[in-house]
Amino acid sequence: MASMTTLKGETFDRSLFESVLKRRFFFTEAFEIYRLSPNFKGDNRGLFDYGPPGCALSANLVDTWRKHFVLEENMLEVDCPVITPELVLKTSGHVDKFSDWMCKDPAKGDYLRADHLVRNVLESRVARGVNGPSKDSPKLSSDTVIEYKEILAKIDNYDGSGLAGLIKRLDIRNPNGNGEVLPPIPFNLMFKSTAGPNSAAPVYLRPETAQGQFLNFKKLLDYNQNQMPFASASIGKSYRNEIAPRSGLIRTREFLMAEIEHYVDPQKKEHSRFHEVTSVQLPLLDRESQLAGKTEPRIIAIGEAVKSEIIDNETLGYFLARIMLFLIKIGVDPTKVRFRQHLRNEMAHYACDCWDAELLTSYGWIECVGCADRSAYDLTVHSNYTGASLTVKEALPGGPVKLEEWQATLDKKLTGPRFKRDAKAVQDSLEALDQKTLHSLAIELEEKGVVTVVTRTALSTGESSVKLTKEFLTISKATRLQTTREYTPNVIEPSFGIGRIMYSLLEHVFWCRSQDSARAVLSLPIGVAPTKVLIVPLSAHVEFTPIVRNISARLRLLGISHNVDSSSASIGKRYARNDELGTPLGVTIDFDTVKNGSITLRERDSTRQIRASEDEILHAMKNIVGGTESWEQVCRRLPLFLGQGQDER
Amino acid sequence: MASMTTLKGETFDRSLFESVLKRRFFFTEAFEIYRLSPNFKGDNRGLFDYGPPGCALSANLVDTWRKHFVLEENMLEVDCPVITPELVLKTSGHVDKFSDWMCKDPAKGDYLRADHLVRNVLESRVARGVNGPSKDSPKLSSDTVIEYKEILAKIDNYDGSGLAGLIKRLDIRNPNGNGEVLPPIPFNLMFKSTAGPNSAAPVYLRPETAQGQFLNFKKLLDYNQNQMPFASASIGKSYRNEIAPRSGLIRTREFLMAEIEHYVDPQKKEHSRFHEVTSVQLPLLDRESQLAGKTEPRIIAIGEAVKSEIIDNETLGYFLARIMLFLIKIGVDPTKVRFRQHLRNEMAHYACDCWDAELLTSYGWIECVGCADRSAYDLTVHSNYTGASLTVKEALPGGPVKLEEWQATLDKKLTGPRFKRDAKAVQDSLEALDQKTLHSLAIELEEKGVVTVVTRTALSTGESSVKLTKEFLTISKATRLQTTREYTPNVIEPSFGIGRIMYSLLEHVFWCRSQDSARAVLSLPIGVAPTKVLIVPLSAHVEFTPIVRNISARLRLLGISHNVDSSSASIGKRYARNDELGTPLGVTIDFDTVKNGSITLRERDSTRQIRASEDEILHAMKNIVGGTESWEQVCRRLPLFLGQGQDER
Repeated sequence: MASMTTLKGETFDRSLFESVLKRRFFFTEAFEIYRLSPNFKGDNRGLFDYGPPGCALSANLVDTWRKHFVLEENMLEVDCPVITPELVLKTSGHVDKFSDWMCKDPAKGDYLRADHLVRNVLESRVARGVNGPSKDSPKLSSDTVIEYKEILAKIDNYDGSGLAGLIKRLDIRNPNGNGEVLPPIPFNLMFKSTAGPNSAAPVYLRPETAQGQFLNFKKLLDYNQNQMPFASASIGKSYRNEIAPRSGLIRTREFLMAEIEHYVDPQKKEHSRFHEVTSVQLPLLDRESQLAGKTEPRIIAIGEAVKSEIIDNETLGYFLARIMLFLIKIGVDPTKVRFRQHLRNEMAHYACDCWDAELLTSYGWIECVGCADRSAYDLTVHSNYTGASLTVKEALPGGPVKLEEWQATLDKKLTGPRFKRDAKAVQDSLEALDQKTLHSLAIELEEKGVVTVVTRTALSTGESSVKLTKEFLTISKATRLQTTREYTPNVIEPSFGIGRIMYSLLEHVFWCRSQDSARAVLSLPIGVAPTKVLIVPLSAHVEFTPIVRNISARLRLLGISHNVDSSSASIGKRYARNDELGTPLGVTIDFDTVKNGSITLRERDSTRQIRASEDEILHAMKNIVGGTESWEQVCRRLPLFLGQGQDER
Repeated sequence: MASMTTLKGETFDRSLFESVLKRRFFFTEAFEIYRLSPNFKGDNRGLFDYGPPGCALSANLVDTWRKHFVLEENMLEVDCPVITPELVLKTSGHVDKFSDWMCKDPAKGDYLRADHLVRNVLESRVARGVNGPSKDSPKLSSDTVIEYKEILAKIDNYDGSGLAGLIKRLDIRNPNGNGEVLPPIPFNLMFKSTAGPNSAAPVYLRPETAQGQFLNFKKLLDYNQNQMPFASASIGKSYRNEIAPRSGLIRTREFLMAEIEHYVDPQKKEHSRFHEVTSVQLPLLDRESQLAGKTEPRIIAIGEAVKSEIIDNETLGYFLARIMLFLIKIGVDPTKVRFRQHLRNEMAHYACDCWDAELLTSYGWIECVGCADRSAYDLTVHSNYTGASLTVKEALPGGPVKLEEWQATLDKKLTGPRFKRDAKAVQDSLEALDQKTLHSLAIELEEKGVVTVVTRTALSTGESSVKLTKEFLTISKATRLQTTREYTPNVIEPSFGIGRIMYSLLEHVFWCRSQDSARAVLSLPIGVAPTKVLIVPLSAHVEFTPIVRNISARLRLLGISHNVDSSSASIGKRYARNDELGTPLGVTIDFDTVKNGSITLRERDSTRQIRASEDEILHAMKNIVGGTESWEQVCRRLPLFLGQGQDER
């Protein structure tokens, strides 16, 4: 695991960090008063409450995301239900394939995620230098250390039988009690329930927002006046019923996602705005480098990466660059970002390529944004199942062309009486056959006089195929004038885990003033900071009240979020509290304010203060929040203040 | 049911309205392509997708709500999980009491909500004038009509046995097939699932956001630096597993809520800002009026309503007035609002009083905002169960007082060995007893020499009480100096159903241009309209492209959401499309723009246009969106334009 240092180069202290976040109520384990109660036997892990600053920070991240992606490119934002009928997720592959490998320890009754079990045990063996659970286990040879490290580097590449093999061969046991575990079985990660009183209506909580967007593809294309390419987007909660959630906000059962589905012609993966981002530098760690055991990314301009085919196409490259720009905008430390390509066995069942934006945290590199090429997978499976058309029809660019094609024709007079209410299903099934199949059926029909055709839907007889003789069916070559081209779009999907991004960002901006490790600061950019301004009257003196109220009202009119702290703590203590909350600006009101109307403005990171009239300070705050002037620029034109509050340095 | 007219006094046409909303993709039934597929057997009712305009409108309503309530009063916004352990909702009463009465029709296999069944059948009998399902049923007497109408007016007041009595006495049957139904049974409205692989961890999807807020009360009070009163707020999805959802967006299984929990000293229900709202006029329909069969509210200033005790207290009154102001701000028709007090049996199990803001729609009066006084119910039950303190401690205003109190003292030397690990539970149980109980126990102990004390939590022996003799226990009067007052706050809860408000609002702002019923308009206020500005180039002429791009970039800088429609449809058609989307402003670029840089600005409701330079029009748009200038004011200072596009009137 890479070591974590703060912005100031000091070692990152997670327990100090967590105590600050807890004290300031950024977030907390949900249902805490129940968890602490002796009667509580349930499993409430992986669920978190966001307190006021966490909730505001999360909302600001979402807001920034919406401006950076949705508004900037006129994406079509939709909002679809979390509750999803089983059939939809059966078709998408999630009912069968969206699972983790799980081992049970029958002695302890523990359920363990198999890959985590292997990783934890091997990491522990490497760290302790022994090849077993106890101190007396045999020493690890240097060859075994190398072997274990190679396994760890590609742990995401093992499937169930691979993990079972490792567990058996390396005698991996439950660290809790050292019991043998049963072989891994798949555990589906979706929460299941039932809609309405009828138990025949199983539903799941969605594992991603994507499916709702795909099902609406035709309506979205229509809304977009049939213009391609375009993107839909969705922000909402998704759910994964993790086997054993740990690591705080990193692995939760309920989480906020922001997902983009960009629909593109598979033959035209260029992007019209790619030229705007070609020089953006990205730290890339591709598949080959990982299999060679490398963990350090190489930094390369995205234009170069696409040209040299490290990145498959411009559209994928464009989004990777835009993701990097977004992360920098919200305050992520660019030296703690890498883009890692998924290994083949690691990819979700729907993806044909995937790059993760990973952020370095005290838990190691954490996947925070996935950018997958889902090809035409989802639109195809939903269309096949429902019979709904999820395609794009475009006029052929070079004008109409003549096509010689195999065509299947049914004798309607015979098929009607024979198949009755299934006649249409038989007709539809023939129409859905591709040219290759028709060709081989034509040969078979010619040779045997009869062919079997699999139907797209079950027939009323319960059968799923029909036999058709030459009397009923003709398959012959015919000429057709093609005027349009029809295709199923490919989907490039940038998918953001807002909670993980927020947690990693908080680690990146956390540091302590060098004089005092108890003086923590969160250097959040003003755009995402929970509160922009703190107003501090020097004391509870009655003359300050109307001034505070007036400044507060003026800030509200400007749409600048702010807090008033009129508690009896010292000015320094009140600022220290707000440094921990990441509040970038502070306004002090003192007796000079009453005399001459001047107020001070303090900047969080430098603790420098300036003093000027209320109007001038408000104007400066408006500029800083709006991004039209920096703190440094304001300092150059307004006088520094070296009076009260300087004791805090 | 009251008849619905549009803003312009015409009869509201729901089918026309729905076709517009569907065509413009405000929302649609979710999973539609599956629902239309012959293989789909599930129940996906009560679930909706919001398309781009619906999603934007909903987001704007939430944004307006946050500014109007949360930011205006510095409420503490939190975000808590949807997934909730069973024990929390068992304690809150939802597992036992959050249900609807349901009848099964064994012949058809239908599940029917009992109150809806009674209402539908009686309404149908009254409308048809016959006392049974067929035309040949006996005619209704005028006495019976009166009786049925009285039942209908207080249908919400019947419990399960009341409904069973009506169904039997009035021979109410399933309208689908006329079969007899089984007596009503309670159907719990929460979706149930399991957390993790262990089936011993049952969870529910929350039916309201409130519980998460209550559980954090102590942390919130601490965050608020122990200042009372204060409010928390939460915006998020909640779930109700409706028996048979109907009525589109009015009754859904998944819905967005915005809830405020205002914590107040039960002895001080005054509100410091009540004076700001005393003159707000509210249409009130109180409990007594309803039981007398009245349906029309009376309009009364909130100051007067609190003074005359129609409304219980200032805090409740303050929020009712603020709710009214919010509804007007977002564009609800004030003549289609009423505030109805809940009947006794209608109230949720936690409420001691409740007023609903109801909006008149084509479905009748719909509850859109509930404003309940939950008293100390929730904080008390959670505190009792978990042992966590959910109270406020304040210094006594008049200084310390001496109290003579009953005190229970255990002989530690004896109780330790006797109760072992249960000793603390016994001690805690004694400490939790109130003065009245202690007094009677003291008498009993004196008389019988032994008392039985019920323990707060089950003991390790499985018992839930202990017998204590005089040897173990002393109960006597003692003097104590009380310096603080401790109390459980009461909670006033304004709770908003965003989807219902959105649907009702859309009905309120829908109308058609008198010349043409196919020319529909949604007169949404600019603050909530999905898109503020439409940019329309006269044609696809290449000279317009850089002008469009420039105006678009300038609007983006101003943070004004806009769309470009450069399709080949006529200007009139493009404006008509955007009238249906509720876009308030339109900008046209034509050949005069190329010549002299002037552009036109069109207002949706009046279709009037003005023409001026790009700078002047952008400045005007900024003012209108920001609320600093009205369209009428802009018209007075910039020249009207009577050129192209006037054909649309």
